[in-house]
Amino acid sequence: MTTTDETRPARPTGRPRSVRAEAAIIDAALDLIGEGMTFAELSIEAIAARAGVGKTTIYRRWSNKEDLVIDALTKLKAPLPKLEGESVREDLIAYLRIVQRDACDARSRCVMNIAMNDAERHPRLAERFRQAALEPRRAAMAAMLRRGMATGELRADLDVPIAMAMLAGTMMWYIRGVESGGDGEISQDTAERIVDQLLAGLGPR
Amino acid sequence: MTTTDETRPARPTGRPRSVRAEAAIIDAALDLIGEGMTFAELSIEAIAARAGVGKTTIYRRWSNKEDLVIDALTKLKAPLPKLEGESVREDLIAYLRIVQRDACDARSRCVMNIAMNDAERHPRLAERFRQAALEPRRAAMAAMLRRGMATGELRADLDVPIAMAMLAGTMMWYIRGVESGGDGEISQDTAERIVDQLLAGLGPR
Repeated sequence: MTTTDETRPARPTGRPRSVRAEAAIIDAALDLIGEGMTFAELSIEAIAARAGVGKTTIYRRWSNKEDLVIDALTKLKAPLPKLEGESVREDLIAYLRIVQRDACDARSRCVMNIAMNDAERHPRLAERFRQAALEPRRAAMAAMLRRGMATGELRADLDVPIAMAMLAGTMMWYIRGVESGGDGEISQDTAERIVDQLLAGLGPR
Repeated sequence: MTTTDETRPARPTGRPRSVRAEAAIIDAALDLIGEGMTFAELSIEAIAARAGVGKTTIYRRWSNKEDLVIDALTKLKAPLPKLEGESVREDLIAYLRIVQRDACDARSRCVMNIAMNDAERHPRLAERFRQAALEPRRAAMAAMLRRGMATGELRADLDVPIAMAMLAGTMMWYIRGVESGGDGEISQDTAERIVDQLLAGLGPR
């Protein structure tokens, strides 16, 4: 399997030209999605044209549009960074800043639309996206909450699935509300305000 | 303006046939949207065919597709019922049950998709929908929260815009999470669990 000719100079790892092409193809797909193209409208032709490559270059790497789109979506929805800060409060704020950054980014938003809202039309696409990109995030969040329950920073009888929905759901709804002309503004301390009000509760002290 | 011929038998109010046609047209539009048709795909032709009326019947009442769609969306997203129950807690639960019912209804969901997610493509449509259907709801919610602050059921220093996002955002995110295979289940007490955990907070007692 390995060559015995150890004196041969090392060849550059990977294949630069095809790696460049792959990045250009992924970028082209995300650009088109970010411009509002639906999954149905997206075509290998359009992606190839935008990326400046031939269709065969795409088909050499992906056997169909769905595989390519899943790779593109997953690339954008990177796994969460390691969240083990000073406290669960810090971790929750860091997590909500990531949700905020994604939600304010037009490309990310269109990607979520395709993955989540086109789900009724493309259930298999939505399911693959869920497994590749959303599940790892959910698992990291749940682990963070359970850590807080163990340290006593969070109530021991926490309803974890509801708490997870509170965190991301509040941020997403807040941003959407502000953007559609509601009260409030999106700023650097939005994540902090959400986390502090979630920890303290809406009830009187 | 009024007739003086008071002995004449009362004619049926409204014009039954055109009222029936109008309802059928609105229903047809909502059906097509509910089947996943985007605003761009929706056509007066398709609506007329589904409703079993001629295109002129539609144009007699609505001058364009946007006006018809706004009427249809607004009809589905009815204003909130009067929420002045025993307590703010009861009102919040009643409100979240409405959010839940809407979110679990495929037709409502597609309507929200059109109104909110097609916003980037159809900003005027989204803006009109916001004013006709969403603003009255937001105002009712804000009034309910301020009532709770006044009675002492909610903390006096409540961050109202964030609290509003917590309520609907949590319910929407929770339902979406469960439906896409996450933990938890949607049941009659989901609204109650969300409200109670929001009131109590995630922090330790």
